[in-house]
Amino acid sequence: MQAKRMKALVFVAPGKIELVSKSVPTPGPTDAIIRITTTTICGTDVHILKGEYPVKAGLTIGHEPVGVIEVLGTAVTGYKVGQRVIAGAINPCGQCGPCLDGSHSQCGGRPMGGWRFGNTIDGSQAEFLLVPNAAANLALVPDHLTDEEVLMCPDIMSTGFSGAESGKVKLGDSVAVFAQGPIGLCATAGARLSGASMIFAVDSVERRLTMSKQVGADVTINFQQKDPVKVIMELTHGRGVDVAIEALGTEQTFQDSLRVLKPGGTLSSLGVYSKDIKLPLDAFCAGLGDHHIVSTLCPGGKERMRRLIEMISTKRVDLKSMVTHRFKLDQILDAYDLFANQRDGVLKVAITP
Amino acid sequence: MQAKRMKALVFVAPGKIELVSKSVPTPGPTDAIIRITTTTICGTDVHILKGEYPVKAGLTIGHEPVGVIEVLGTAVTGYKVGQRVIAGAINPCGQCGPCLDGSHSQCGGRPMGGWRFGNTIDGSQAEFLLVPNAAANLALVPDHLTDEEVLMCPDIMSTGFSGAESGKVKLGDSVAVFAQGPIGLCATAGARLSGASMIFAVDSVERRLTMSKQVGADVTINFQQKDPVKVIMELTHGRGVDVAIEALGTEQTFQDSLRVLKPGGTLSSLGVYSKDIKLPLDAFCAGLGDHHIVSTLCPGGKERMRRLIEMISTKRVDLKSMVTHRFKLDQILDAYDLFANQRDGVLKVAITP
Amino acid sequence: MQAKRMKALVFVAPGKIELVSKSVPTPGPTDAIIRITTTTICGTDVHILKGEYPVKAGLTIGHEPVGVIEVLGTAVTGYKVGQRVIAGAINPCGQCGPCLDGSHSQCGGRPMGGWRFGNTIDGSQAEFLLVPNAAANLALVPDHLTDEEVLMCPDIMSTGFSGAESGKVKLGDSVAVFAQGPIGLCATAGARLSGASMIFAVDSVERRLTMSKQVGADVTINFQQKDPVKVIMELTHGRGVDVAIEALGTEQTFQDSLRVLKPGGTLSSLGVYSKDIKLPLDAFCAGLGDHHIVSTLCPGGKERMRRLIEMISTKRVDLKSMVTHRFKLDQILDAYDLFANQRDGVLKVAITP
Amino acid sequence: MQAKRMKALVFVAPGKIELVSKSVPTPGPTDAIIRITTTTICGTDVHILKGEYPVKAGLTIGHEPVGVIEVLGTAVTGYKVGQRVIAGAINPCGQCGPCLDGSHSQCGGRPMGGWRFGNTIDGSQAEFLLVPNAAANLALVPDHLTDEEVLMCPDIMSTGFSGAESGKVKLGDSVAVFAQGPIGLCATAGARLSGASMIFAVDSVERRLTMSKQVGADVTINFQQKDPVKVIMELTHGRGVDVAIEALGTEQTFQDSLRVLKPGGTLSSLGVYSKDIKLPLDAFCAGLGDHHIVSTLCPGGKERMRRLIEMISTKRVDLKSMVTHRFKLDQILDAYDLFANQRDGVLKVAITP
Repeated sequence: MQAKRMKALVFVAPGKIELVSKSVPTPGPTDAIIRITTTTICGTDVHILKGEYPVKAGLTIGHEPVGVIEVLGTAVTGYKVGQRVIAGAINPCGQCGPCLDGSHSQCGGRPMGGWRFGNTIDGSQAEFLLVPNAAANLALVPDHLTDEEVLMCPDIMSTGFSGAESGKVKLGDSVAVFAQGPIGLCATAGARLSGASMIFAVDSVERRLTMSKQVGADVTINFQQKDPVKVIMELTHGRGVDVAIEALGTEQTFQDSLRVLKPGGTLSSLGVYSKDIKLPLDAFCAGLGDHHIVSTLCPGGKERMRRLIEMISTKRVDLKSMVTHRFKLDQILDAYDLFANQRDGVLKVAITP
Repeated sequence: MQAKRMKALVFVAPGKIELVSKSVPTPGPTDAIIRITTTTICGTDVHILKGEYPVKAGLTIGHEPVGVIEVLGTAVTGYKVGQRVIAGAINPCGQCGPCLDGSHSQCGGRPMGGWRFGNTIDGSQAEFLLVPNAAANLALVPDHLTDEEVLMCPDIMSTGFSGAESGKVKLGDSVAVFAQGPIGLCATAGARLSGASMIFAVDSVERRLTMSKQVGADVTINFQQKDPVKVIMELTHGRGVDVAIEALGTEQTFQDSLRVLKPGGTLSSLGVYSKDIKLPLDAFCAGLGDHHIVSTLCPGGKERMRRLIEMISTKRVDLKSMVTHRFKLDQILDAYDLFANQRDGVLKVAITP
Repeated sequence: MQAKRMKALVFVAPGKIELVSKSVPTPGPTDAIIRITTTTICGTDVHILKGEYPVKAGLTIGHEPVGVIEVLGTAVTGYKVGQRVIAGAINPCGQCGPCLDGSHSQCGGRPMGGWRFGNTIDGSQAEFLLVPNAAANLALVPDHLTDEEVLMCPDIMSTGFSGAESGKVKLGDSVAVFAQGPIGLCATAGARLSGASMIFAVDSVERRLTMSKQVGADVTINFQQKDPVKVIMELTHGRGVDVAIEALGTEQTFQDSLRVLKPGGTLSSLGVYSKDIKLPLDAFCAGLGDHHIVSTLCPGGKERMRRLIEMISTKRVDLKSMVTHRFKLDQILDAYDLFANQRDGVLKVAITP
Repeated sequence: MQAKRMKALVFVAPGKIELVSKSVPTPGPTDAIIRITTTTICGTDVHILKGEYPVKAGLTIGHEPVGVIEVLGTAVTGYKVGQRVIAGAINPCGQCGPCLDGSHSQCGGRPMGGWRFGNTIDGSQAEFLLVPNAAANLALVPDHLTDEEVLMCPDIMSTGFSGAESGKVKLGDSVAVFAQGPIGLCATAGARLSGASMIFAVDSVERRLTMSKQVGADVTINFQQKDPVKVIMELTHGRGVDVAIEALGTEQTFQDSLRVLKPGGTLSSLGVYSKDIKLPLDAFCAGLGDHHIVSTLCPGGKERMRRLIEMISTKRVDLKSMVTHRFKLDQILDAYDLFANQRDGVLKVAITP
């Protein structure tokens, strides 16, 4: 490896991030180092920036890497330096109790689980990234796909699709998706691809509602103009939806999700909540229901990434239009400024070296 | 049918129930009338008595019938007058959208669902009971079983077992059951029968904890003496349990259930809550978990009853020792007084004509 | 009801069917009579005609009805005479043990199960049809859909989709579908709608392979030109497919389905076999696999029909182009001649009064 | 490590095995070496001895190890030399496509899958054993359990229990288990622990049928005296069983399993078949059923082992009485002679150094 130093975006203190120079990491026997060719910013990174989700000072943030293998640990087989790869935001080891029990996202158990990049180890908003448990996490990117085409796989596509998967959307289901930000849009796409026959998408930004129709919504509802609960109950003739997906993280959308569910339906929660939320008596606690509430942390691992890449490769979904703005790593503070303030219709940004 | 009038316990007003004389019901073509030989009182009936769960004045309450077929509707085939039967607390029609979709407990959809006895139609604390959709709901009782042996099937055994079933308890799971009242005890038994390898049972009444051990608990925790969250986390070496079953209906037990869960575990909620409850940020909302919360309304229908009767018939479980006191229907107000005040170690009462 | 006599196509003897005059049926309390407006012929009807599947002489055949309610049994509520409806090929009662246990297709248990139309009771190739358990089986057709648009719902769409459903096709799966007749084409559509990322379709008729691409196949394989096992194993890089759907009913396609499966994959069998078939040692019996083989009988009931109609209504799939030929009921013998001999590229015929 | 040479039982040629001297293996970075303290012989080892299942000459056979950690590879953390452990017969890496997809037994994919000990690498009938992917496979044995108490975990308990698990046995199910050898007995125990209400066990050896009752069977059927299909159909009143478990590996028991199934039931196959078997037209191919056939290869990995050990630790099942005979490693040829010829009521033998 030529480079000894690299640029990396680190968390300094609540409200303050900085592009600094850091040592390029050295891999242990089961790790790999990838040279980042494209990465992006997630809403969670903004939470970190604001101090709403705590990480230690000096940590490189970001968890959505596309790159090229630069160095392989001595025990990593099946890969070659120079191959283009992605790694999921969550890195299962595959070998601990939770992983072997099928809970890859909860790798390692309490208290931190399997989310490491930009959370417990240095992340992807840098020139190089150490990927732990490389054998379980590096997924090859076919030559015919661009970096931007697979940039959504590590997090938002995996998370958004899991909204439909954990909700067990099946052929002929009706689905409501609350919020059409990047993850909500992916949830809408996931519900459509899972066979939902009727998809209601709720947001207040017309541009997002328009894109929502493109990825699969049948009916869009601007909650500033109409009460989504009322609209959905009317259009389902009082029956409610089979599955509601919450993709924002507020008490209001959580409760609305419960209120549009059919008795026996499933609320699939993707939002990251920043405080306690109330389960309302009328829509849950009265005990006359058969309620299902499930939350899902972005599924990772190379097999998950392979499947998502396949979906893109066979054109089941095209998420590259979600990249609305592009920046060099040197300009990443500008990118944060744009993204955190949701200016200029930004959905996702692409960051290149 | 000889009798034209019958005794029936009706709800009058919050705090007031009365044993009155009523007409024996007349069956429609798909109904049956059964002569009640044994019934019992449920915690839900006490909620009704107190006005915490609203029913209309004059309604006969009770939803746990054992009896003998007295009259069959003209369209009901496959049964004979005189057969001994039970019917579940919940009566699916089997033919509506929710039933055909597998949500038998939500029969008929909003707002009331499939719980009818002592809720939307006259119930079982009477001399006679009309069973709607008899073909889907009457389950034969084998001669070798007594009324008391099957008295728990219609509600608490079905509900309690569903705690383990909806929690998807599997071989080798650890399970915590919060509260060891009649339903909690059945949940404990259900968890044991489902293959849990370690069952923690929480209550404060020693007599119940003792019975809990008899039906399957490995470790009992008196929450007045020790913090159950702390004990369970210690005994699972910080891992938490695979499944937590809430069988009381309070915010405290709901939150404790979440706090003892392993990441990715399931909270199976059986309690009937009487107000909003908070989903705590630390144990749910932070969004790093793969949480499952499921609530289940007592599964009914004759096939469900057949399965429960089978379990009793082959001695997988013996719940008749839960019948601690016996009353005649004429003394039912005394029975309510005992049961509602939880005196004399009462668990369940048997009411006979 | 005005009509006392009606035309009906009956099975006479192996090789012989006849259009005869019969009494219009009289409904029991839970039945309905519908006036058939469109019906069609199924491959199974051809098996019946040939004597390969036995029915009693004089039985009206056909099990795919679209019609208008003519008479409602006295106990049937929730419908009105004159409403346009379909009923599935299989008619669950919803109230027997198998139905309440979730096996609607096995309604009533051994030996006949829930397939009644044109099997154990008179079928749909007639002017009128008695629908048993009407409350569980009549599904309303919205005004904006034509008869032909919903004509595939009662059998082939339900059966074909169940191939994907029983195979548990999920996002990113690869799927092979053996045979692209009407049911195989619906299976291909069902796999696509369930989120398969790569679908291989096998047949020898180019016209069907072309249509297969239209409904969702990515790769079509003409088995007269190439060995489908070899092609599929190559294109999956030796991995095999996640799910194989057999939609023909021969030993060859059954075994090929096993041979293209990944270890741990699922064979979803829709074919009706006419003799014993061998499970090959190499692809099943050696005992080193985790094999899943599942067969599914056309799911029925009004809720299933409602979901399928919804999928058509929201344009998830358009199967009306499968109707290649149209006949009057008076010409139904010509329709059989065309369909049984697979002439003129026939896929499905529409029969109207 | 002191020992450089060790005793090991190797396959020489069909019909011939030999106790030889071999080098003690040297671990790679992710391996461990364990010193075997107890092992046993499996029916599969007898297949190998007879040449019915091919392995290469010189391979040490056996796949059921209990031992003590002797050496840890440089990259293996979380263990200490001297700890007592078991490893499952199947060794998942946890990091390949099939493992991450949940098919641990199919680790590494075609053609060999995850069964390595005594199949593709040296096995446990030796003084020392190399365990690959030690981090995913070594399960600690608590001090209070003896070697013999956990000796069934690596294979027959895991395999037998999987018969019930893959069959999805649930509360109130009826189950038939064909053959009551070591695996069949474990399947019976697994069905009982999973909540079956009625278990039929079929064999011809009275001693096994007696033990079958001890581990959970309700009804035992000696197939040399009575036709098990007839008996089971009578005792289920013509309904058939919910789940049939085949634990022998013959066409007869496979077909009988299908014939006692209720329509819509599941055949869970554990047998290793030595030739093609026929799916009979009447019980499968006629296409009117909703059949499920599932086969399962012994689940492995340390989490699986942990769960099984837990079940033993909390006394859910006691399988140590299955050890009927004990031998020193030096006498292992005598042990094979006894076991292969099923003399003296042998069920399982314990082999110690």
